[in-house]
Amino acid sequence: MFIQLDFETDIPIYEQLKDEIIIGIAKKELKPGDRLPSVRALASDIGINLHTVNKAYQQLKQEGFVLIHRQRGVVINPDGAPKADEQYKQKLKMSLRPTIADSLCRGIDKESYFTIVEAIYEELLEGGKSNE
Amino acid sequence: MFIQLDFETDIPIYEQLKDEIIIGIAKKELKPGDRLPSVRALASDIGINLHTVNKAYQQLKQEGFVLIHRQRGVVINPDGAPKADEQYKQKLKMSLRPTIADSLCRGIDKESYFTIVEAIYEELLEGGKSNE
Repeated sequence: MFIQLDFETDIPIYEQLKDEIIIGIAKKELKPGDRLPSVRALASDIGINLHTVNKAYQQLKQEGFVLIHRQRGVVINPDGAPKADEQYKQKLKMSLRPTIADSLCRGIDKESYFTIVEAIYEELLEGGKSNE
Repeated sequence: MFIQLDFETDIPIYEQLKDEIIIGIAKKELKPGDRLPSVRALASDIGINLHTVNKAYQQLKQEGFVLIHRQRGVVINPDGAPKADEQYKQKLKMSLRPTIADSLCRGIDKESYFTIVEAIYEELLEGGKSNE
């Protein structure tokens, strides 16, 4: 799996790392039960701080994407991430509201927004197909 | 216009304030040319720091939502926010990718995601109608 980080943006590195792993899971490049590199190995591989990798792993654990075993290390949750419940959907809605308002103010109508969302779903699902 | 801030979340207050104003513009509760309260007045009204309001206003100015006049104060951009260009759409796509990957991992398919986006567009456009 290819991890791409951007050191120029203001998105924290741990968040980018977390996002890349979630994208990897969505694309099925990372499959349930797969082992991730140890904190130490990954930090050294991509040249970032141990604490940064640890923070990403801990958040992934908290959100149910990975399990952290004493012996087996960090493993993609064999049962998959917990399914979205009403609370998740409500939170998603709240987080999308400002970006959609911003887009609307700049003339992006619902159809154009759908086109962008559709392209992302396709990219993620396509990735999935070639990794099955 | 009603400004709702949540002091419990980890979203910075200036960002919430900025988002609320952008939502107000999208809903046409705030119209081109409308004056916003002074930094001092708004800070005192909602009980937050002057610097917090100032940071929100400065970012809104930078993104083209408001103009800051020496005499007239803070005014909703009479020409509207700059229209989305390719760079904006690219940035939007990049910012949506991780949330869509997260949703996909939790079983939210494209149609369910569309339903959520659609509800937000409707809410914003409905607000618009009653404020025209």
